[in-house]
Amino acid sequence: MDFKLELNKRIEYVEKNINEFLPKVIIGYKQSEIFEAMEYSVLAGGKRLRPILMLETSRLFGGKDDDVKYFFSAIEMIHTYSLVHDDLPSMDNDDFRRGKPTTHKKYGEAMGVLAGDALLNYAFETGLNGVIALSGDLKAVKALKILADKAGVFGMIGGQVVDIKNDGKSIDIETLDYINELKTGALIEASMMIGATLAGATEDEVELIESVASDIGRAFQIQDDILDVTSTEEELGKPVLSDEKNNKTTYCSLLGIEKAGEKVKELTDSAILKLKTLNKENEFLYELLYSLVYRNN
Amino acid sequence: MDFKLELNKRIEYVEKNINEFLPKVIIGYKQSEIFEAMEYSVLAGGKRLRPILMLETSRLFGGKDDDVKYFFSAIEMIHTYSLVHDDLPSMDNDDFRRGKPTTHKKYGEAMGVLAGDALLNYAFETGLNGVIALSGDLKAVKALKILADKAGVFGMIGGQVVDIKNDGKSIDIETLDYINELKTGALIEASMMIGATLAGATEDEVELIESVASDIGRAFQIQDDILDVTSTEEELGKPVLSDEKNNKTTYCSLLGIEKAGEKVKELTDSAILKLKTLNKENEFLYELLYSLVYRNN
Repeated sequence: MDFKLELNKRIEYVEKNINEFLPKVIIGYKQSEIFEAMEYSVLAGGKRLRPILMLETSRLFGGKDDDVKYFFSAIEMIHTYSLVHDDLPSMDNDDFRRGKPTTHKKYGEAMGVLAGDALLNYAFETGLNGVIALSGDLKAVKALKILADKAGVFGMIGGQVVDIKNDGKSIDIETLDYINELKTGALIEASMMIGATLAGATEDEVELIESVASDIGRAFQIQDDILDVTSTEEELGKPVLSDEKNNKTTYCSLLGIEKAGEKVKELTDSAILKLKTLNKENEFLYELLYSLVYRNN
Repeated sequence: MDFKLELNKRIEYVEKNINEFLPKVIIGYKQSEIFEAMEYSVLAGGKRLRPILMLETSRLFGGKDDDVKYFFSAIEMIHTYSLVHDDLPSMDNDDFRRGKPTTHKKYGEAMGVLAGDALLNYAFETGLNGVIALSGDLKAVKALKILADKAGVFGMIGGQVVDIKNDGKSIDIETLDYINELKTGALIEASMMIGATLAGATEDEVELIESVASDIGRAFQIQDDILDVTSTEEELGKPVLSDEKNNKTTYCSLLGIEKAGEKVKELTDSAILKLKTLNKENEFLYELLYSLVYRNN
């Protein structure tokens, strides 16, 4: 399997679908600029990791791609809104993301707030269209509930709150785990759990998938910290040593690079072992999970 | 009927239910401050107009209060988040609301953004709990879809965008109607439509209710403009002549007070006439609709 080629196929498929769901600029709508700002934010690039994880977990359980498209679009909208709001002056105050001006830099701060709100709200409009397309099937309702829970104050938003509250403070590993589990982990868990749920996995299977995704999410975050120290700006496509500059407590600063690397391997092995107990085939998904952890950018 | 007494009963009922749904501060949750900020924002007071309109429209069609509580809580959370974000420095930059510091003044700007996000997200968590409590009944799914649509870029957020884009500009009546229909009207329509939908109203009936709510929403907004000119700060509980000070185009500045008053009467009569064609009894709802328009605060 040519992993890179297969990955790009999926990125294209995912982006095509998300783009089709986004509201379009139509004559007569006086609020068209918000449609532009939403599209600008969502289509600015990115790995499309969450949609692809959802799609491939659904395929692992024999689900239909057409059922998943509403939900993978919704989770990417939520991921995007969180970046748009994180970049705001009152939060991380970032002017650029992936080499382009951030949404509030391009459209103004008020539109930055509103574009984020719009994407969060539109994620549920899109997800509910999915529930309706599936005739109100309880699986679809539960899938959307997983998204809502994992994106909210007990998930992603909760993690962002704890992160902001500890900004500039040195924290212990328990707090660092807590922040990462919620801020990054929760949506990765949601991706895989929703894929499984839509494909008709049992509750036990969804729980196992949640645990796999939790390991992967943690390994992914630790690897992020390692790359910030060991990679070059050229490889990473963004400035390195940023955590040190920002006085951020990371797995490297708490554990050292070597131990952090061991932790990545441990978590990845654990995730793969759990996934194998399902006895289900999806070569691409396995490759994807490895690639998330053993990456250099 | 002692309208004031009956109204207060409903406000109490609605607030009790919303409060029960809100996430509580529990030991072990490091993000508890966001729960506080959400509760502070939601329980800061207010007319609870949208929840009560939803409840009473459901009752008009013989619906069960228990089915509606998730949804009236959700719409009040959405209404509240919109106020929290509207008050942010990059938007209206308001330090006080109902005599209390706004959420971002009390908890800081980053928490203002996050508390708004949290309430919007939590509205859907709550609404989806309602759908699950109703076993995925398509009526409940459609009710939540109405909420999502009316709160989004084709509804409330869209109106806010057009309002902000025209800030400080003089606008024509078409644009003023457009802003009000979306910014204020959409959620009032959603309230009544969701009440009707949950109670099993037909599509034609829901459409008629939408039109009633649209008339009421417009009358309400015009009356707001009139009161800003004709009322006293004592009666209104907030500064008067604020539109003039802010150079805001209003129905009074475009039509004059007399014509604006005629328009209020016209729209209210139209709403009541439509509602009467249903031949359904709900004395309190009729009184409530009149009170919204013929009020002095």
